Amino acid sequence: MDGPWVNLAEQLGADLHLDLAGPGSRRAVLIRALREAIRTQRFPPGTKLPPYRSVAADLGLARNTVADAYAELVAEGWLMAKQGSGTRVAERAEPLAIATTTLTSAVAARPLIHDLRQGLPDASAFPRSAWLAAARRAITQAPNEAFGPGDPRGRIELRVALTEYLARARGVRTSPDRIVICSGFAHALRVLFPAVLRGPVAVESYQLAFHRLILAAAGVATVALPLDEEGAQVAGLTDRPDVSTVLLTPAHQFPLGGPLAAHRRAAVVDRARAGGGLLIEDDYDGEFRYDRQPVGAVQGLDPDHVLYIGSVSKSLSPALRLGWMVLPERLVDAALGAKGQREAWAGVTDQLTLAELITSGDYDRHIRRTRQRYRRRRDHLVQSLAERVPHVVPAGIAAGLHTVLRLPAGTEDAALDAATRAGIELDGLAAFRHPDAGVGPAADGLVVGYAAPPDLGYRGAVDALCTTLASVR
Amino acid sequence: MDGPWVNLAEQLGADLHLDLAGPGSRRAVLIRALREAIRTQRFPPGTKLPPYRSVAADLGLARNTVADAYAELVAEGWLMAKQGSGTRVAERAEPLAIATTTLTSAVAARPLIHDLRQGLPDASAFPRSAWLAAARRAITQAPNEAFGPGDPRGRIELRVALTEYLARARGVRTSPDRIVICSGFAHALRVLFPAVLRGPVAVESYQLAFHRLILAAAGVATVALPLDEEGAQVAGLTDRPDVSTVLLTPAHQFPLGGPLAAHRRAAVVDRARAGGGLLIEDDYDGEFRYDRQPVGAVQGLDPDHVLYIGSVSKSLSPALRLGWMVLPERLVDAALGAKGQREAWAGVTDQLTLAELITSGDYDRHIRRTRQRYRRRRDHLVQSLAERVPHVVPAGIAAGLHTVLRLPAGTEDAALDAATRAGIELDGLAAFRHPDAGVGPAADGLVVGYAAPPDLGYRGAVDALCTTLASVR
Repeated sequence: MDGPWVNLAEQLGADLHLDLAGPGSRRAVLIRALREAIRTQRFPPGTKLPPYRSVAADLGLARNTVADAYAELVAEGWLMAKQGSGTRVAERAEPLAIATTTLTSAVAARPLIHDLRQGLPDASAFPRSAWLAAARRAITQAPNEAFGPGDPRGRIELRVALTEYLARARGVRTSPDRIVICSGFAHALRVLFPAVLRGPVAVESYQLAFHRLILAAAGVATVALPLDEEGAQVAGLTDRPDVSTVLLTPAHQFPLGGPLAAHRRAAVVDRARAGGGLLIEDDYDGEFRYDRQPVGAVQGLDPDHVLYIGSVSKSLSPALRLGWMVLPERLVDAALGAKGQREAWAGVTDQLTLAELITSGDYDRHIRRTRQRYRRRRDHLVQSLAERVPHVVPAGIAAGLHTVLRLPAGTEDAALDAATRAGIELDGLAAFRHPDAGVGPAADGLVVGYAAPPDLGYRGAVDALCTTLASVR
Repeated sequence: MDGPWVNLAEQLGADLHLDLAGPGSRRAVLIRALREAIRTQRFPPGTKLPPYRSVAADLGLARNTVADAYAELVAEGWLMAKQGSGTRVAERAEPLAIATTTLTSAVAARPLIHDLRQGLPDASAFPRSAWLAAARRAITQAPNEAFGPGDPRGRIELRVALTEYLARARGVRTSPDRIVICSGFAHALRVLFPAVLRGPVAVESYQLAFHRLILAAAGVATVALPLDEEGAQVAGLTDRPDVSTVLLTPAHQFPLGGPLAAHRRAAVVDRARAGGGLLIEDDYDGEFRYDRQPVGAVQGLDPDHVLYIGSVSKSLSPALRLGWMVLPERLVDAALGAKGQREAWAGVTDQLTLAELITSGDYDRHIRRTRQRYRRRRDHLVQSLAERVPHVVPAGIAAGLHTVLRLPAGTEDAALDAATRAGIELDGLAAFRHPDAGVGPAADGLVVGYAAPPDLGYRGAVDALCTTLASVR
């Protein structure tokens, strides 16, 4: 069985090519074809499969598609992967019964071709080399106690690096002992409510629904603030003295896109100061601004009345689960107590590596590079829309990794249906609307993330989007 | 200011050596001396400090002690560290006010010399090279989608590797899609209660208090099971049909040390089967068994009625925050729902790296090596006790990273006080006793972890412990 590998393209060629041209994800088709060939013993146990790259070349597939298909079949027990000796059909040809059904249905449920979901950076842009180089330096140099039980605030190296970085890049004023490392924004909300802060909380009338759901699960009611071209209308809170906490995305309103106007930034801070309140600042994509200097964090205006939360989910990868809270001093102990000394927070290796990545300047270089890349993508999207569907005007394009396409009233559902048929995954504006929000000027629309597809797939995705939009005008 | 560094030993020598000989941690003394020298401008802004190793050599300190002191002072703003150009006194000689007070008190509160706490592996044994090599292979080879939003169950590579490893090393029978990656045991408990499982839960009458506290915070009552030399007396549950879930440490009762007897393993599974119940198996140190083959997991007896939880907290480091639940199929979806798709779980780089570490065999090699090391430590402890305090008999020494030293009735508090005076940190048995537990045969005792100190410090720690025990007899 150690001979040359079976030639997939030859063995499955005709059928497979035919299938790959049809509907459904190419990965799912490949998995199905391979599984069938193994089950029917067309590929008997021990058969050596070709490496990803040759299958990819033979069948005209992305290498990752083949890699994913192999991984799935390894997980299901059909294939065995062994370092150095490639991938083979499993010797016991009897796959794990449970795995097969579950994973098959998971695959079948994902006929996704064009990923235009908001909130995701380009996974292929993760700076693997820089990350590994930083990890090598950081892990080699770390003191032994780094691998001990650890500081519940997070590694001192990372908190020091963030203090300097956030001051420089985002205008955040803090010190390392007011930073608490967490897994990201959702984790921060769960830590803070209800143990540290109480509701009701004022939120923007358009926001990520799962933030509201986390608050609701903690028994915290939300009050929707109307939005206009200057951002959230915080003045509306004058008759709500019971609302002491406000949760905003001041640098780049999510999802509508504008920055909070300067006088409103001042107003929300003044209100917090006067009433002992707090602004929770969700700085989810503050690094990605295309028109001018980044809009600084509101936190810099008053570190004692703003709780700033950021993460690497947009700048590096959401899969790192690495974020930070910058807390007013009076809340630090309560937040640490609520978080728990042994509870989930980021692993020490990632913390040390990010600290080194920041200190070495590689983090800045990566952000500059991806900012340029996303800017080019944004420009291509804006230009394509102008040429092919000029009635669709993108909004909120000065920053971030997404844009909002306003649609004629009543057409959002039809546009989403058409997108789904075209294999495009994205969300409509309705998905972000607070249940108490009046249906405002931005009532119908699509939220288009332009960062997620790999470079090779991006133009095709925009093309499919334009075709779809033209069909529902 | 780019000249040679200030010679610390010369400048601070006499005072410092004097102080270092006195009470309190050496790190705290060094920090205090350095801070004083900077504050009084004896070391003016820009002064270059010598590298760790030369300070360590000059002053007779561990290199990590010096590194920690530098890191603390960087955090406080007294020093600046810059890659490649060493550590200097900060240019703006005005340190961060908040940092100073907080960190100073944190340092003052830690005059720890001998760390004999249970539950901690030797932080200096973390396999940095093997980890970095695995990280390089894993991160280089990972498909792009690894850096996308991710699978809430955790990376498929890790779940596949764990399926194979847990079967081989612990007798666990599962498939990758019944594994959910989490941050460790505490995280698993928080995910499971109250969303997936209901109380009351039967627990061992000696256990980690924070497990009980997590359950209590979730509104879950616990019922204490008495312990004898065969482990938890599960038969006592016959008159408690309301208790359907049992939480045990079957491989190595924590903290008393014995394995659960075979007939009791069978009984707890039979009970779960008969009543639709569940055993939660906390396999916290199953890899470390010294007398014979590891005691296999109870999960292997009935994967549908045992929920198995493990982690790398003992085998690699608690700072990785990396663990796994092996779930009965019927609970998988509920656990994933409770965990949340965006909530804290381990970062993808650690997941991929651990998968590669396991697949390559380096994880097994590391465990074999540390097992030998801990076994030697255990032997040294047992022998020292026999020679110097023969009336103190260690229990539960066939496995794990700790032992229990039974003490004459009524002497635990005095022993703990004496240990604190001798600079030894450890816990008494009372800290692990369930409030409803009858005070049994093991009423007074110390729980001695023998893994935490670095190799160089271990013999001194055992020596101090023996001296302390001799003084309280």
